[in-house]
Amino acid sequence: MDRSSFGVIGGDRRQLALAESIAEDGFTVYASGFENADFSEDVQKADLRKTVSACTVLLLPLPVTTDGAAVKAEYSNHPIVLNEDFAQLLAGHRVFGGMIGKALAACPQLEEVDIKDYYAREDFALRNAAVTAEGAIECAMREYPGTICGSRCLLAGFGRIGSQLAPRLRALGAEVSVTARRSEVAAAIEAIGCHAVPITKLEDGGDYDILFNTVPAVLFTRRVLSVYPRGTLLIDLSSAPGGVDMEAAKKLGICAVHAFSLPAKVAPRAAGEIIKQTVYEMMKE
Amino acid sequence: MDRSSFGVIGGDRRQLALAESIAEDGFTVYASGFENADFSEDVQKADLRKTVSACTVLLLPLPVTTDGAAVKAEYSNHPIVLNEDFAQLLAGHRVFGGMIGKALAACPQLEEVDIKDYYAREDFALRNAAVTAEGAIECAMREYPGTICGSRCLLAGFGRIGSQLAPRLRALGAEVSVTARRSEVAAAIEAIGCHAVPITKLEDGGDYDILFNTVPAVLFTRRVLSVYPRGTLLIDLSSAPGGVDMEAAKKLGICAVHAFSLPAKVAPRAAGEIIKQTVYEMMKE
Amino acid sequence: MDRSSFGVIGGDRRQLALAESIAEDGFTVYASGFENADFSEDVQKADLRKTVSACTVLLLPLPVTTDGAAVKAEYSNHPIVLNEDFAQLLAGHRVFGGMIGKALAACPQLEEVDIKDYYAREDFALRNAAVTAEGAIECAMREYPGTICGSRCLLAGFGRIGSQLAPRLRALGAEVSVTARRSEVAAAIEAIGCHAVPITKLEDGGDYDILFNTVPAVLFTRRVLSVYPRGTLLIDLSSAPGGVDMEAAKKLGICAVHAFSLPAKVAPRAAGEIIKQTVYEMMKE
Amino acid sequence: MDRSSFGVIGGDRRQLALAESIAEDGFTVYASGFENADFSEDVQKADLRKTVSACTVLLLPLPVTTDGAAVKAEYSNHPIVLNEDFAQLLAGHRVFGGMIGKALAACPQLEEVDIKDYYAREDFALRNAAVTAEGAIECAMREYPGTICGSRCLLAGFGRIGSQLAPRLRALGAEVSVTARRSEVAAAIEAIGCHAVPITKLEDGGDYDILFNTVPAVLFTRRVLSVYPRGTLLIDLSSAPGGVDMEAAKKLGICAVHAFSLPAKVAPRAAGEIIKQTVYEMMKE
Repeated sequence: MDRSSFGVIGGDRRQLALAESIAEDGFTVYASGFENADFSEDVQKADLRKTVSACTVLLLPLPVTTDGAAVKAEYSNHPIVLNEDFAQLLAGHRVFGGMIGKALAACPQLEEVDIKDYYAREDFALRNAAVTAEGAIECAMREYPGTICGSRCLLAGFGRIGSQLAPRLRALGAEVSVTARRSEVAAAIEAIGCHAVPITKLEDGGDYDILFNTVPAVLFTRRVLSVYPRGTLLIDLSSAPGGVDMEAAKKLGICAVHAFSLPAKVAPRAAGEIIKQTVYEMMKE
Repeated sequence: MDRSSFGVIGGDRRQLALAESIAEDGFTVYASGFENADFSEDVQKADLRKTVSACTVLLLPLPVTTDGAAVKAEYSNHPIVLNEDFAQLLAGHRVFGGMIGKALAACPQLEEVDIKDYYAREDFALRNAAVTAEGAIECAMREYPGTICGSRCLLAGFGRIGSQLAPRLRALGAEVSVTARRSEVAAAIEAIGCHAVPITKLEDGGDYDILFNTVPAVLFTRRVLSVYPRGTLLIDLSSAPGGVDMEAAKKLGICAVHAFSLPAKVAPRAAGEIIKQTVYEMMKE
Repeated sequence: MDRSSFGVIGGDRRQLALAESIAEDGFTVYASGFENADFSEDVQKADLRKTVSACTVLLLPLPVTTDGAAVKAEYSNHPIVLNEDFAQLLAGHRVFGGMIGKALAACPQLEEVDIKDYYAREDFALRNAAVTAEGAIECAMREYPGTICGSRCLLAGFGRIGSQLAPRLRALGAEVSVTARRSEVAAAIEAIGCHAVPITKLEDGGDYDILFNTVPAVLFTRRVLSVYPRGTLLIDLSSAPGGVDMEAAKKLGICAVHAFSLPAKVAPRAAGEIIKQTVYEMMKE
Repeated sequence: MDRSSFGVIGGDRRQLALAESIAEDGFTVYASGFENADFSEDVQKADLRKTVSACTVLLLPLPVTTDGAAVKAEYSNHPIVLNEDFAQLLAGHRVFGGMIGKALAACPQLEEVDIKDYYAREDFALRNAAVTAEGAIECAMREYPGTICGSRCLLAGFGRIGSQLAPRLRALGAEVSVTARRSEVAAAIEAIGCHAVPITKLEDGGDYDILFNTVPAVLFTRRVLSVYPRGTLLIDLSSAPGGVDMEAAKKLGICAVHAFSLPAKVAPRAAGEIIKQTVYEMMKE
């Protein structure tokens, strides 16, 4: 890894932070697709061709593409098109990207390139979930007019995000209930001092101040929403399109908030750091 | 207390929440000085004279006055002037206000009224500090591009706010150091798993990601600020005018944030609830 | 489940607690193999034949047998022999036991019986690990002459036990490091505010007050032990025969403690409760 | 402080640890009244006269005397009598002792000596309370057959010990209620996520698994005890003679445990460390 040089191609605030962080580690870093961004002097802006030729490792954003046509590049006016030329340019380099599926579908020639997906790794997912859990708390603090301390929270789901969010809420003084489908999940919930409730109880309502959804399915249908009092805060952390019937929520006076892509929004530096840690790890393996 | 009726006279979002919360407890509530605000049907808007004549208990805002001339009333176009007439109107009622000193100075006739200061009470101060501590975390989460988990935090001061902020930060996964002038404060800091550092060490700098100031004195002078790296986040929680040389901070690239009056801003409902709890308590004593 | 009656056959303090707890739930409970034990009046002592004929559900201990010849029964003088007669007696009942493998090997006719292993379930394992984690803290508090608060702890392993022990130690004020072999484990460790250290660092020693082993392999060999100072406390939570070269530890002045079977020892009522919860769960499925 | 030499005169396991710890800091240490104890080679055993003549600072135990006649010295067969000779011997030295009142009463000539009480200091009391809080948890874990996680605990008192015990119990997963006489105490209790209950509710009983008393008054009279179910665990942390009618508890089947002098028993090294820290602090002032 010692002699690696890194080319950051496209992205958002996370990739800005990523480029700076790698440069701080003493590596040579080029950045392409950032005409409208400012870097410290340790990161060199260059066009795509220059970046590729100067660097052994190339880093694509997360997701690599949103529109299926070009690399995601918020700070650029010139599209970096996903085509055969692009794929040929990348050949011979170690390439890392996040959620590479859509890019591969749009540009099958990328299959020939040594490209790996950091988003697909469990360590990435866990670190990202930690950032999301913190972002969820920030969101709850901002939206809830009371305090987390003393509030009664209900979480739907105890996966990567839920299992990191529940203990944080409790540590801040909340009384925390979590839905569990299986008995071993209930065991894990109770082991951290939270209450396990069957997921079927969701439609029985209950005396909760804040609801969090982490389940990627529309759990909060009109029927479920209708049992909670007007003004209840509901924060949806599941990935788009989300697990809440937002229209019904609006009509019922539930204050529902979509909190998608929290890491990029609330902690871009942490998110960039996570990408860096994961890529370093993949390079060592 | 059973037959009390409450008149809320002036205020901001906290008093809105206060009026609603008392009404939810089943009491009669009138509100004056809220022409531009919306209440539920349980709170009756009325002019000052009507409100006073209908209610046994009158609640003034926090602070009672900011300009020394009229009662603070963000939702009103008509000033409720602090004069002899006002004082006479209040006579014979139980009156509660927050930070009543400036109002008494502006309208000495209020001395004749049975007016008590909820802000001066220790229980109010403690509950307010809990809200401030949470607000400080929300502020840190919003301003800091990394995560609290894994960050190194330094708190100046371990009074009401500091002693509630430190354990919360640690519970969220931070490594927390707190300055202590006296040995018994160091003991209390270490008893919650934090590091106690002499306050003189502040000017030695150190490897911190986030600094919090809770001390009402300008600790963070140009000289102290100059030892921390550019980009360090510094959240000032001391009351106005604050404990940070903001101009120096700007020049030195320290990201300093004044976080004054957090309860009113971040958790008005909690802040209203605290006023209610305190007034209820005072009525029982 | 409503009309179930339960026969508790053999066991130790956990089965005493189990029988009482089921009786408190309103079920009929018989206990066999407890001549030398005292029950409340809600549990009826009976011989094996009576117990089996009176009950629909039969509960065997954990482990069902230690010697491979008879059911474990600490409170009995008469062995309940694991033979064909025993198996025939059980036929037609729902039978639950813990670690049933050895009993099946000793008495193959049990294969014909509807016998299920509660010990093999993940929910049981997780709840048991929670009890073990608490027992480990009790053990550390008893053996360590300082306080957990302010101590530096190193855990080997972040499985069921380690992942429940680490946050508890940190919550009590310790600084906690945990060994991790894989990158995603390191991610999970850091997400709870602990330090992840590569397992290879174990033999580099370090400034730790208390070591905990949860890995079922002899990690703490003479060579590893030799890098830690005399007087270091080492608590071995892995199952027998343990992960520590106890002889070497003794010679090197390491204060090594085997803490096997903690749930039965430190919290028999909790352990009995866990068996009950698991069996109820299995009956519902 | 640099050239100080320390004479440890009498005591128990805490003074053993104290002597060793001071020696580890590089100071010369003599110990008198420890014929039956073993020290490392860094601590020199000597008779009283030798110890006093060799040392500038003299450390008496906690308490200095239990019988009012001689210095407490568990490891000695020869009493160190508190008389005029003793006082004259100490003259001209800096002397520190714990709970010196009884010794002064027994030997008024000590008034002429420069003797200071480390036990009377707030920093000592706070650090001692932290050790006591941990000892209380160890005691609860040992005596309670369930787990702290998931248990319902009631604390009487929120002073130095209660305020350190409550958050630890909650962090371990318990649901914690604390009695409060005053409104500001209730505020402080709620700020850490615990329930505040009026002290008058003590005699209403309630669904608690473990009771802790920290109040130095007989709160748990026969009448109060009678409302709690048989088998309830009650840990009395108040100083002797304690706050529980032990005889009544026995008759009522309450499992009451006196947990006096916890620091000396459960964490002598920590207790010795606290004495050292406090004395160092007093020498600096």
